[in-house]
Amino acid sequence: MFRFPSGLLYCRLHRRKLSTTPSRPPSLPLSHPIYLIWGSNTGVGKTLVSAGIAAASLLSSATTSSQFHYLKPLQTGFPADSDSRFVLNKLRQLSVLRNPSVHLSTSHRVLNVSPAVLETNPLVGEEGRGPSELHCKTLYAWEEAVSPHLAAEREGLAVKDSVVLETLGECFEEVVERGAGRERSDVLCVVETAGGVASPGPSGTLQCDLYRPFRIPAVLVGDGRLGGISGTISAYESLTLRGYDVVAVAFEDHGLLNEGPLMSYMRNKVPVLVLPPIPRDLSNDLIEWFENSHHIFSNLKEIMLSAYFERIKKLQDMPREARDIIWWPFTQHQLVPDGGVTVIDSRCGENFSIFKVQKTEVIAPQFDACASWWTQGPDAIMQAELAREMGYTAARFGHVMFPENVHEPALNCAELLLQGVGKGWASRTYFSDNGSTAIEIALKMAFRKFSVDHGIIVDCHEDTTNERPTELMVLALQRSYHGDTLGAMEAQAPSSYTGFLQQPWYTGRGLFLDPPSVFMHNNTWNISIPEGYNWENLKGESIAFSSCDEVFHKGRDKSELATVYSSYISEVLSRFKGSKNVGALIMEPVIQGAGGMHMVDPLFQRVLVNECRSRKIPVIFDEVFTGFWRLGVETAAELIHCVPDIACFGKLLTGGIIPLAVTLATSAVFDSFIGDSKLKALLHGHSYSAHAMGCAAAVKSIQWFKDPCSNPNITSEGRLLRELWDDKMVRRISSHPAIQRVVTLGTLCAVELKAEGTSAGYGSLYARPLLEKLREDGIYMRPLGNVIYLLCGPCTSPEVCNKLLAKLHRQLDEFDGYKN
Amino acid sequence: MFRFPSGLLYCRLHRRKLSTTPSRPPSLPLSHPIYLIWGSNTGVGKTLVSAGIAAASLLSSATTSSQFHYLKPLQTGFPADSDSRFVLNKLRQLSVLRNPSVHLSTSHRVLNVSPAVLETNPLVGEEGRGPSELHCKTLYAWEEAVSPHLAAEREGLAVKDSVVLETLGECFEEVVERGAGRERSDVLCVVETAGGVASPGPSGTLQCDLYRPFRIPAVLVGDGRLGGISGTISAYESLTLRGYDVVAVAFEDHGLLNEGPLMSYMRNKVPVLVLPPIPRDLSNDLIEWFENSHHIFSNLKEIMLSAYFERIKKLQDMPREARDIIWWPFTQHQLVPDGGVTVIDSRCGENFSIFKVQKTEVIAPQFDACASWWTQGPDAIMQAELAREMGYTAARFGHVMFPENVHEPALNCAELLLQGVGKGWASRTYFSDNGSTAIEIALKMAFRKFSVDHGIIVDCHEDTTNERPTELMVLALQRSYHGDTLGAMEAQAPSSYTGFLQQPWYTGRGLFLDPPSVFMHNNTWNISIPEGYNWENLKGESIAFSSCDEVFHKGRDKSELATVYSSYISEVLSRFKGSKNVGALIMEPVIQGAGGMHMVDPLFQRVLVNECRSRKIPVIFDEVFTGFWRLGVETAAELIHCVPDIACFGKLLTGGIIPLAVTLATSAVFDSFIGDSKLKALLHGHSYSAHAMGCAAAVKSIQWFKDPCSNPNITSEGRLLRELWDDKMVRRISSHPAIQRVVTLGTLCAVELKAEGTSAGYGSLYARPLLEKLREDGIYMRPLGNVIYLLCGPCTSPEVCNKLLAKLHRQLDEFDGYKN
Repeated sequence: MFRFPSGLLYCRLHRRKLSTTPSRPPSLPLSHPIYLIWGSNTGVGKTLVSAGIAAASLLSSATTSSQFHYLKPLQTGFPADSDSRFVLNKLRQLSVLRNPSVHLSTSHRVLNVSPAVLETNPLVGEEGRGPSELHCKTLYAWEEAVSPHLAAEREGLAVKDSVVLETLGECFEEVVERGAGRERSDVLCVVETAGGVASPGPSGTLQCDLYRPFRIPAVLVGDGRLGGISGTISAYESLTLRGYDVVAVAFEDHGLLNEGPLMSYMRNKVPVLVLPPIPRDLSNDLIEWFENSHHIFSNLKEIMLSAYFERIKKLQDMPREARDIIWWPFTQHQLVPDGGVTVIDSRCGENFSIFKVQKTEVIAPQFDACASWWTQGPDAIMQAELAREMGYTAARFGHVMFPENVHEPALNCAELLLQGVGKGWASRTYFSDNGSTAIEIALKMAFRKFSVDHGIIVDCHEDTTNERPTELMVLALQRSYHGDTLGAMEAQAPSSYTGFLQQPWYTGRGLFLDPPSVFMHNNTWNISIPEGYNWENLKGESIAFSSCDEVFHKGRDKSELATVYSSYISEVLSRFKGSKNVGALIMEPVIQGAGGMHMVDPLFQRVLVNECRSRKIPVIFDEVFTGFWRLGVETAAELIHCVPDIACFGKLLTGGIIPLAVTLATSAVFDSFIGDSKLKALLHGHSYSAHAMGCAAAVKSIQWFKDPCSNPNITSEGRLLRELWDDKMVRRISSHPAIQRVVTLGTLCAVELKAEGTSAGYGSLYARPLLEKLREDGIYMRPLGNVIYLLCGPCTSPEVCNKLLAKLHRQLDEFDGYKN
Repeated sequence: MFRFPSGLLYCRLHRRKLSTTPSRPPSLPLSHPIYLIWGSNTGVGKTLVSAGIAAASLLSSATTSSQFHYLKPLQTGFPADSDSRFVLNKLRQLSVLRNPSVHLSTSHRVLNVSPAVLETNPLVGEEGRGPSELHCKTLYAWEEAVSPHLAAEREGLAVKDSVVLETLGECFEEVVERGAGRERSDVLCVVETAGGVASPGPSGTLQCDLYRPFRIPAVLVGDGRLGGISGTISAYESLTLRGYDVVAVAFEDHGLLNEGPLMSYMRNKVPVLVLPPIPRDLSNDLIEWFENSHHIFSNLKEIMLSAYFERIKKLQDMPREARDIIWWPFTQHQLVPDGGVTVIDSRCGENFSIFKVQKTEVIAPQFDACASWWTQGPDAIMQAELAREMGYTAARFGHVMFPENVHEPALNCAELLLQGVGKGWASRTYFSDNGSTAIEIALKMAFRKFSVDHGIIVDCHEDTTNERPTELMVLALQRSYHGDTLGAMEAQAPSSYTGFLQQPWYTGRGLFLDPPSVFMHNNTWNISIPEGYNWENLKGESIAFSSCDEVFHKGRDKSELATVYSSYISEVLSRFKGSKNVGALIMEPVIQGAGGMHMVDPLFQRVLVNECRSRKIPVIFDEVFTGFWRLGVETAAELIHCVPDIACFGKLLTGGIIPLAVTLATSAVFDSFIGDSKLKALLHGHSYSAHAMGCAAAVKSIQWFKDPCSNPNITSEGRLLRELWDDKMVRRISSHPAIQRVVTLGTLCAVELKAEGTSAGYGSLYARPLLEKLREDGIYMRPLGNVIYLLCGPCTSPEVCNKLLAKLHRQLDEFDGYKN
């Protein structure tokens, strides 16, 4: 039993409020190596290993002036047990024995203890400085020797995860400060966890999840006993299944040769170190054991240092290497500025963790406001769940081909799709790989349906003559975007993407309507109606609205504007006669994404769908961007109060973790491919059709997003997200002088900057200085020319969104100033 | 200590040879529930739980006539420890106490023991039958109480994994036999593992990997001690990371409320059962403990039964449900016969595990000879490694957007690609999602390069006028296939896929050459030269070869045939003049996949590349099918001894686990997109470009396939796979009367069946009866009309391939007979 010295006592108790709102996780400094010490079980010797590394750092013959930081974030059984104190005392003993010439200065602090501890026990303090320093710190301590979550519940000092992380972040800052001026390798910090890798922290969150935002490199203390191979491997797997990098495994020898299977499992990629047996007779205070283990701990320390240096070098080199060999999409490489390549070390929920050089090098969080290019949905908890799901599914299925086969993930996914986004109209699920392929499939479906309905093809046979009985076109909208493969491009209006320079084969096989658009400006929602509409019928009807809800109101069907829309559409269609047929309507419901985040008047789209239906033109909704809660509802079709014959989904379908797309269709569409010849079937497919991992991710995400237990943003019967963007702030931004228009809906907040000439349009670099400032401020955005946007996930809390808005507003002020 | 009763002793020792070749894993019968009992550590009470379940099955008041099978595949510390014996004795004791009226008949056998055991100990025997039966069996036993891999090494009785599985499979067959005629729920079998989930078996393989081919549903015995939450969760994760379904967790209560965090972790999806504390005083032989736990074990048994029934129902219902809501690609739904839908329960390495109704329902292995539609590479070990990699990568990165960003998996993948398939020519990596998109990107690259080189476009500006300065075409081959999106389709010759019925927008923007093809027939490799070639120049040169190597010989460059090819190509190109330009050559090197597994004369392709190069026409290789060892070399370009300007890869790129594609290009191609405007950049991309999981899978696979340590098929400097298909057998098949031609290369063995009229071609159903027979025989194939093929992975052993060939040959004989 460890006894507490009195005297040098010091207490800095700053308990944090439990009500703290979720804060951005702090950064991990890279100025010196920091490691997490994990145990494959409790009682496997984490503290001995920590002390051993400390001794190797501070007391080796080569050491002249080193610094070692030992942090114990969560200590139970305190003060009887104090790992911090143990390390301190052991190092003092060892320093006297091993290297009496070295003056080792030590400090020891305990930051927060439970009331139970305070009542019954004294606290601890700190010493001065010296050439070699050992700093030991306990962050949170409870008296009872049980798991922290139980101790916290029983004794008080409940502490939120975010607060543990913040406190730890402050400790890291102190490491940086104290280590300033020293060589990278002369300062080492280890953070010793409590119990096993998946033991709960004080909030109940498993520690491997709790510390995940930092993703600190790990040393795993394994188990040398019977059964220890299994425990060590499983603990290692739990760590890697959370994205940790384990740089070494060390364990106490029990004569069972556990290192053999462990090394074979690690395939020599992670070193396995064997520590001598710990004597059961502790009469000499383990001093002899530490002496015998010294070379192993030196070895371990070297492994930790070299992994650290390797990581730093990789992070530093990556931008240059990427520039040399990567070809980024949608990127003019010549225009990527120095320092313009972002090194993404990892992501945790909505945040990237990026490599950044500030005062020192750090791994810093940055809110991914592109929602990783419109795909992203998971918060940190969901990401961890999806990771486990991916591991399971890959292990169970790998990949299995799809035609005429069925497997659970594909079937479950299809069922959920038809009960969700396809509810009430769709009856068939066609899987593919991305939005673009889903669109190509949709077009083939629609054209076949149209051809059958209009008697263009009656019979089928081995048709390689490639005769064309008629030319089919799509009806589509200006500013639309449906993907980058040729078929998808042909369905969009001419744009920067479609010129000869980009795609010499593009011809634009569509009749492209110019739709009325909706946006907020100066605190008001307006509808902008392009030329070509017959305005006189309007008789002064208002096209300004005080709220977005009014825009979506079904009652507008009876407005004069509905008639204006209807006659515009009829008129355009009647102008278009001849050998060509309009074989499909294709449109993005409500929001046109890549075209510049334009909101189309939902009334116009509803009228358009009705006009097509009356002409037996199949209707395709491109919901690749809008689907799965992007706009605050599971399917944007709900917003325009009508259903398609065919719809395409992708991106958020899998929660944004893995590519998968799907084309849903009615049974009438499906039936137009049924016959007695294979050649009448839809002969389009991709090798990974309905791949198990994609389908499993979709199943988990579809359920997760709509379940109020897992998604706190779900309101009223799971059909709506609560408002994520603060209306007041949005209105303020809409009145900002730098702003042309604002569109907010669901997870989207888009803003068009006022710009003219070459400053406007997709090719413009106008927004760059603004975005650079925002990146410094922790928000990662990417513009569509002079249109910028914030995109969050369906589970992101409104508090986070508000912080983003506030930052945007602040930077807009500066941007506006800079401009003038 | 457990003491052995003498008397009723019986020994059936049938040690298997270690040299047994790898056999097909046996089937898992579904006639009655079978469960694996796993422990989160050693000594957590697996045997108590097994006995408890046995008691609940055999001794409850409702029981009239039940059967319980207890199997202990691996027992160490034997005979002092015998879990089998413990269960037997405990049940005898309990039956006397609890339900004396029930006559419980018991049997106990030990199949194989190590020589050490034999020397020093007697063995065990068996009793008769009765209305309620308990059958306990130990499969392999060693004397020393250490891990089986150590015991096996020290005592002998080394036993291969495949043999353990076979023996276990035989035991399952016995369960079926003995249970015949009983209700599903009246027979229960549990298989108790040894130690923890990841404890090694006798060969050193971790048990969770060893038993994986059966994928038996699992019960996990957790740990109620301090640290036990962590150990239980980690063990659970190791099981799910291997594709197991855990139906329940049970653990001994130690008063630490471990069930709270465990239930929260399981999200109420897996029941957690708490067993009463086990008394340390064992004076009453735990009888009281079993009595107190009875209701919990009854509960556990019910959970196991209902999970079993749920699984059976799902497996039975899936084909019908799939028919109702799935739309399969390339499938005429009306032609899918009853029973034609394959339920794939999982895959393990090269085998599907499918649901099959034979005498009884089983999960049976079936060799996936489509290599899951050309994507597949991993053996079972690699699949498990990839699963862990997927879990890690999803946890670390989720997905992060790519433009102007860099992350480790993408960069590492790009580097490996340029050092591997792009070596010597490529310098840039463009990621996309599938072969089709990779081709569309390649075409855009090639056309730009051509346009720049030929002065078609000089300057760039916001080009939305969509003027076309010229019309660009591709030079391509008849029977080619490059994907199903419109751009990829336009680059292929007219076929069943391209008619108005399939794609009304197809026009065929290519000049399509008819290439000479190579195949084996009647024991000889032949070249078939189509019409239009100027034969007279040949002067009788032989176009038959005794081996495939001769076909690939570079020396053929000097043959007359090279001149014939060259003048054919020049002549065709000169005929094609006017307003159109040939802007790119695109071709699948060596093997045309979807077009019917045709082998193109490599000499022709080399000549063609040279002709294009001399005319400054960019060359695209479509290696989506042929790349990454599909043809026995990492890139098929090696086989034709020339390099492209642009190449596309997909499918096997990720080892076949997840969709990812890549287009590689030379720096000259890249440079044609460099300028001062974003509009000159390549504006093509997909949201999941370079997604982390795909890149990580590719990194692992690229390294795995070419490393002789992980791929036993790698020969000479890692540049070639050894011959996988037995030459003698291939030649026999090529001489079979039912066969038109054979092509074998690398992992491919394709066979065209002799057929005429409507029996030939893509739409033909001619091969169906043959394939049905082969499926019954354990080989899953899917035809391309009358062309069928066997496709294995780069790591598949030649022994396995030979078995496939032998089966094919046998079925061909029958097929031929059936025809006549």
